[in-house]
Amino acid sequence: MFGKKSFIPSWTETAPATGSYRSIFKYGDPNHFKHPSSHWYEMMKEEFGMSDADFEKKKDEGNTKVSLNRPPALKPGQIEQLSAIVGNENVSLDDFSRVKFSYGKTTEEMLELRKGLISEVADVVLHPRDKHDVAKIVEYCNGEKIPVTVFAAGSSVNFGCKPAKGGVILVLSTHMNKLLKINELNQTAIVQPGMFGPAYENALNNAPTLFGTRLAYTCGHFPQSFEYSTVGGWIVTLGSGQASTYYGDAYDIVFSQEYVTPAGNFKTLDFPATATGPKINDIMKGSEGTFGILVECTMKIFRYMPQNRQRFGYMFPSWEAAVEASREIMQSEFGKPAIYRISDPEETDRGLKLYGMPGFLDKFLQKKGFMPLKRCLCLGNCEGDADYTKLVKSKIADIVKKHGAINLSGYAVKKWEKTRYTEPYMREDLGDYSIQIDTLEAGVTWDNLHNLHKGVREYIKARPRTMCMTHASHFYPQGTNLYFIFIMKLDDPKEFREFHAGIIDAIQKYGGSLSHHHGVGRLIGPWMDKHLGPEQMAVLRTLKHHFDPNNIMNPGGQLGLDSDEKRKKLLKK
Amino acid sequence: MFGKKSFIPSWTETAPATGSYRSIFKYGDPNHFKHPSSHWYEMMKEEFGMSDADFEKKKDEGNTKVSLNRPPALKPGQIEQLSAIVGNENVSLDDFSRVKFSYGKTTEEMLELRKGLISEVADVVLHPRDKHDVAKIVEYCNGEKIPVTVFAAGSSVNFGCKPAKGGVILVLSTHMNKLLKINELNQTAIVQPGMFGPAYENALNNAPTLFGTRLAYTCGHFPQSFEYSTVGGWIVTLGSGQASTYYGDAYDIVFSQEYVTPAGNFKTLDFPATATGPKINDIMKGSEGTFGILVECTMKIFRYMPQNRQRFGYMFPSWEAAVEASREIMQSEFGKPAIYRISDPEETDRGLKLYGMPGFLDKFLQKKGFMPLKRCLCLGNCEGDADYTKLVKSKIADIVKKHGAINLSGYAVKKWEKTRYTEPYMREDLGDYSIQIDTLEAGVTWDNLHNLHKGVREYIKARPRTMCMTHASHFYPQGTNLYFIFIMKLDDPKEFREFHAGIIDAIQKYGGSLSHHHGVGRLIGPWMDKHLGPEQMAVLRTLKHHFDPNNIMNPGGQLGLDSDEKRKKLLKK
Repeated sequence: MFGKKSFIPSWTETAPATGSYRSIFKYGDPNHFKHPSSHWYEMMKEEFGMSDADFEKKKDEGNTKVSLNRPPALKPGQIEQLSAIVGNENVSLDDFSRVKFSYGKTTEEMLELRKGLISEVADVVLHPRDKHDVAKIVEYCNGEKIPVTVFAAGSSVNFGCKPAKGGVILVLSTHMNKLLKINELNQTAIVQPGMFGPAYENALNNAPTLFGTRLAYTCGHFPQSFEYSTVGGWIVTLGSGQASTYYGDAYDIVFSQEYVTPAGNFKTLDFPATATGPKINDIMKGSEGTFGILVECTMKIFRYMPQNRQRFGYMFPSWEAAVEASREIMQSEFGKPAIYRISDPEETDRGLKLYGMPGFLDKFLQKKGFMPLKRCLCLGNCEGDADYTKLVKSKIADIVKKHGAINLSGYAVKKWEKTRYTEPYMREDLGDYSIQIDTLEAGVTWDNLHNLHKGVREYIKARPRTMCMTHASHFYPQGTNLYFIFIMKLDDPKEFREFHAGIIDAIQKYGGSLSHHHGVGRLIGPWMDKHLGPEQMAVLRTLKHHFDPNNIMNPGGQLGLDSDEKRKKLLKK
Repeated sequence: MFGKKSFIPSWTETAPATGSYRSIFKYGDPNHFKHPSSHWYEMMKEEFGMSDADFEKKKDEGNTKVSLNRPPALKPGQIEQLSAIVGNENVSLDDFSRVKFSYGKTTEEMLELRKGLISEVADVVLHPRDKHDVAKIVEYCNGEKIPVTVFAAGSSVNFGCKPAKGGVILVLSTHMNKLLKINELNQTAIVQPGMFGPAYENALNNAPTLFGTRLAYTCGHFPQSFEYSTVGGWIVTLGSGQASTYYGDAYDIVFSQEYVTPAGNFKTLDFPATATGPKINDIMKGSEGTFGILVECTMKIFRYMPQNRQRFGYMFPSWEAAVEASREIMQSEFGKPAIYRISDPEETDRGLKLYGMPGFLDKFLQKKGFMPLKRCLCLGNCEGDADYTKLVKSKIADIVKKHGAINLSGYAVKKWEKTRYTEPYMREDLGDYSIQIDTLEAGVTWDNLHNLHKGVREYIKARPRTMCMTHASHFYPQGTNLYFIFIMKLDDPKEFREFHAGIIDAIQKYGGSLSHHHGVGRLIGPWMDKHLGPEQMAVLRTLKHHFDPNNIMNPGGQLGLDSDEKRKKLLKK
């Protein structure tokens, strides 16, 4: 090969054609691309037994125009009534819109869209202008028994915005996407649910200019999907940001909420704490559109102090040492890091290769006893007051040292920060050559972490030529999450579906929660009965029936509340 | 008066007679007494226009034997069946037990018991041995439609353990009072709900000896009623400990719970976080016995590091300065103090007098501009890692200085710590001379704190000769609580009831939550419809109906879920 120029696949460099399937499944900005690096390319060839020849021709690019040939199932009179509520300019009935606003970003959906296979879609797409529009739509649809499903940023990875029973899709991100007010005394912000993460964070960072506040603020919530996620989506799916160890999960940063439901509209109470019975504010969180529609959120906000950020990176000699040190950090009560992640041996070694670790560093690490497929990367940062972040960083340094870690400086986390939101873009290129990358994740207590990690990894690795990289990235005194990334060559949606279901089975079998922060949607729904048990599922179904007696709110398997025969078949007998 | 020996009332120094009314309403240990100091005595005479002569004869001491003359309303066969479940030795049918285990510690109850007036009582008192007994009792009572109410420590201040419809009282503190297991990896403890605070804390502090753990632990939850409160009570009433600013409220320190309900028995999930829909674990918290019975709690525990505690005390020149500095402390992100309290001017000045502030100190303070009925006391401590507590204390010092505070050292908080649990004992002596001391409290956001403080104080102070002392003692970035202590001369339960209802009205009118940590019970129940609004009350009633379709679980006005005609009359039209 010496002297020969390496082959580089012709990764797609143009925005998908208007109206094409590809324009729906492509992640994020149509004009942004993230191609696999040469390291990535070499790894894929090696792992999947592929050659340059296999990368000469793309497959199932989905470049054709979306065509549905399915007239809306609503009666013309119903469409007229709905149009009268939102105005004609806020109604879409064309094939492309009906598909686009019915699709999230699961691998299954991508595989199907690439082949031009369309499953359930909306009958009509509405773009409500405000919460009053939403209230009128829900009232009308409840009377007519028309299903209502919400779409905002569309980055759901569990069919959470899939209109399984057709009906109306409400796109909340078109108009209801503004930061309405900042209450600086209370450190709260009133936000419309369809506001995207970056717009919200930008407004808070620039609050002194935009809202005349004394200080600048941050939202504290930065999921990997940040650029294509909305504030409302964070709450109703129980998301977690990458800095959740410090700021809390979405659950923790919601002060109050306003909902529209078939059973009535209401705003939960604005108190920092209250001992007046079970908290409706918390009951609504995570309801994934099945109880009603979140139309306004009052969020806790935090002081924006990036100048105080302290970064760190370490290499541990083993996964056990990394976990043990992390537990000690989370239980020692000196404060908490903001971002804090540990990668298991496979993720660490692939990561080192993919990011192009220089050979001398690898040699140095090995000489020091940090061996490939044993060593584990840890990276993170601290946020808050300047003295606090210095203290937390120095305390972490003390603890990891006791557990045999070596200091890698803040370089790795700085590098990681640059790509923290862009990883999903690579799915497009990989998919062009039938390579799928997907993830599942679970909450877990410390005492079950190794058992869950081993059990789920074993299932994934039992599939030939399948990569499995795992990290923990959201920490609590009582445990953490495990985030499993799996990469394989495959293009049959059915084969994917069955393998994927097996991973969920393994998570359940080895005692993880079914999701730590992706939510349930229809993907995990069939496992919910076993997850919660009949008595607790009955509580959720009781609430569902109360809010939505006609089952029009996001019906068809969401949260496992009602039946989804197709996906139920994936459950092990 | 010079040379004349001061008169001292003959405060009661003997334990109440066995079987007497007094033995029921006396707070806490029958052999522990806390008499008003000479400062207290002088203050009462001055405030209420009383003389030594008024303290020569006690009134309504309640020394007679409890006599009920009301046979149990249950059928003999029913009592037999219940006895068969728990064993005859765990059944009480005598008048005294039926009254004792039906009464909490509201002022109204004390006033009535002093006069030998008995309202609703249990028909039978059962002491279940374990959660299986509880399950059998609830199943049987549900079939027979017999009301079931729980009693544990009996320090409720809102009729929360009052069997308004008679029936069965379950005393959970007799047998179900043990720490079952510590999971040191997860930092959790499995506790029976009837375990008293001191026993639980003691077991955790001594965990290395008792449970063979590596470290000692603390529960982090220390309400004023600590000595007469139980772990289960903390959870179902949404209590807050005096160190909640650091450790969190009871709501925050519950990891999972096991419940017995008429609709089935279940244990919530053991995950540090999970995104699988609305959290049943949270839905059950604060249900005050109306959904079912908490039979086992898994609690988060914390490292016990009293050696790291850092105490502080400050005097602010004004209430506004104290509030503003406190907000800055809670929003600055350098960590949190554990105990943190600010007293309003009236509480500060009465406190200084009652604790016997030396004259020279008062002169010094006035000279420095800290004037009586303007100045405000702040005290607290920091807990956690040694370097962390030093940092938090020093950051607080910086902020309070900027707001004009003067350092009083940790002396005041040390003195306060000694009496933190014993204040309620004084109610007995005061009541003997018709002086009542009671409290109401509310959660509030920063932007409404002064409005609420002013509004409620004005109502209380409009009553002639009525003291009102207020502090804030549980802090959040978004706000705090206001705790109103009112002292007055009065012995008519009806007069008390009406004045008290007016305070709740004022709290509602000026935008406080109806309770920050006392819970709702039957006392606040009538205000709940307005507090939550019809849509949100409907959610609670839906859950109630789901868990308890026959309305046997703590029925009769609890949480405002069902009607309580007597107390509803207190509501303003």
